[in-house]
Amino acid sequence: MERPFDEDLKILKEKLLEMASLAEESIAMAVRCLKERRGELASVVLKGEEKINHLEIEIDELCMRLLALRQPMATDLRFVTSAMKITSDLERIGDQSVNIIERTVDLLKVPQLKPLIDIPRMADLAQNMVRDSISAFINRDDCLARDVCERDDQVDQLNHQIFRELLTYMMQDATTITRAVDLILVGRHLERIADHATNIGEDVIYMVRGKTIKHHIEANPPLGAKPAGKS
Amino acid sequence: MERPFDEDLKILKEKLLEMASLAEESIAMAVRCLKERRGELASVVLKGEEKINHLEIEIDELCMRLLALRQPMATDLRFVTSAMKITSDLERIGDQSVNIIERTVDLLKVPQLKPLIDIPRMADLAQNMVRDSISAFINRDDCLARDVCERDDQVDQLNHQIFRELLTYMMQDATTITRAVDLILVGRHLERIADHATNIGEDVIYMVRGKTIKHHIEANPPLGAKPAGKS
Repeated sequence: MERPFDEDLKILKEKLLEMASLAEESIAMAVRCLKERRGELASVVLKGEEKINHLEIEIDELCMRLLALRQPMATDLRFVTSAMKITSDLERIGDQSVNIIERTVDLLKVPQLKPLIDIPRMADLAQNMVRDSISAFINRDDCLARDVCERDDQVDQLNHQIFRELLTYMMQDATTITRAVDLILVGRHLERIADHATNIGEDVIYMVRGKTIKHHIEANPPLGAKPAGKS
Repeated sequence: MERPFDEDLKILKEKLLEMASLAEESIAMAVRCLKERRGELASVVLKGEEKINHLEIEIDELCMRLLALRQPMATDLRFVTSAMKITSDLERIGDQSVNIIERTVDLLKVPQLKPLIDIPRMADLAQNMVRDSISAFINRDDCLARDVCERDDQVDQLNHQIFRELLTYMMQDATTITRAVDLILVGRHLERIADHATNIGEDVIYMVRGKTIKHHIEANPPLGAKPAGKS
């Protein structure tokens, strides 16, 4: 028998999936705009970000109503408060896509430095991490959540590789510096998106397994080995 | 007469202030480590981050207990859920300081590119924004919160200025590229810290004034004028 709380939870999950799907699309569109040099896609990303912002408020309000009217306990309570943290991450993913568009607008004014291979690969990885982190949340699947957190290393490595390659361009030819720095920043924004997905994954692990797990993954990071920061 | 809820709220506020003060200190220490080339300060930042991580969990657990046992309503409910969002921002500020330390460890291995003036100024601004955003939250002061949000522009401008100056170094002398890029990244981390303080400010405005205000500040950002992203 379905309780009214389950109905609310169903709506919450649907709204979260909608928000996550917009966030994923914003990553894909931003990087396609850059890769295919299609400036007209910029407005798609900007409009998507507005929708994402509205959904954050809508979901937060829904969570507040749920907390106030249903007074959920234990795992349900944790689910609702985690949802409120997750909307913040999704909203910031939308912001990062807008940041990529801003760099792209500059990059489209000048000739292409090189065909882009690794940046679209990184975008694919980040996008899948976002999708899986939300799926892990909806299904309370801490294994999938852990898998998302582990994939963060691949994105970091790819970003490091892009960074090294662009450094070489700059060293060899000073006229490439502005474009190379813009592409380095695009790489950082994608890394940041993967960090947000990792944050969501950590929230899921925390939600499912309780308080001792969070920060375990990134506890005592080897200095200089990879960025310890998550956001 | 003091209700038990007020007692809980007092503890929550104290813990948040402690966490914010550690976050502020981590920014100051990271940038001092870089400016004064004092590598031994790196471990202070790393230890501080561990404490910040523990406090995030502690405060989140406290908020969950408050929600479950006291079932707060209206403004109290909004205060507790906002606190849970704010701990995420403070935790990520700690992460950003660790990122600065990682860049610093690399920078201390090579001769200094230039005496640092603007980066410490940016760190001061960001640190004050963090302090004021938490003070705005504790005192439910939406005017101070709005002031914090507005200061974000100063940090962005300073970051842009640092970026332009370092580009000039790189253009003139390719041997400076690696160091200049590291310093550009430090600038980005500080900008990111200011963004987190801005996020906290926005949460405070949202908490005090209700749902129509959030995202108003950054709605329809002029493309390319300044980074629209907040995280």
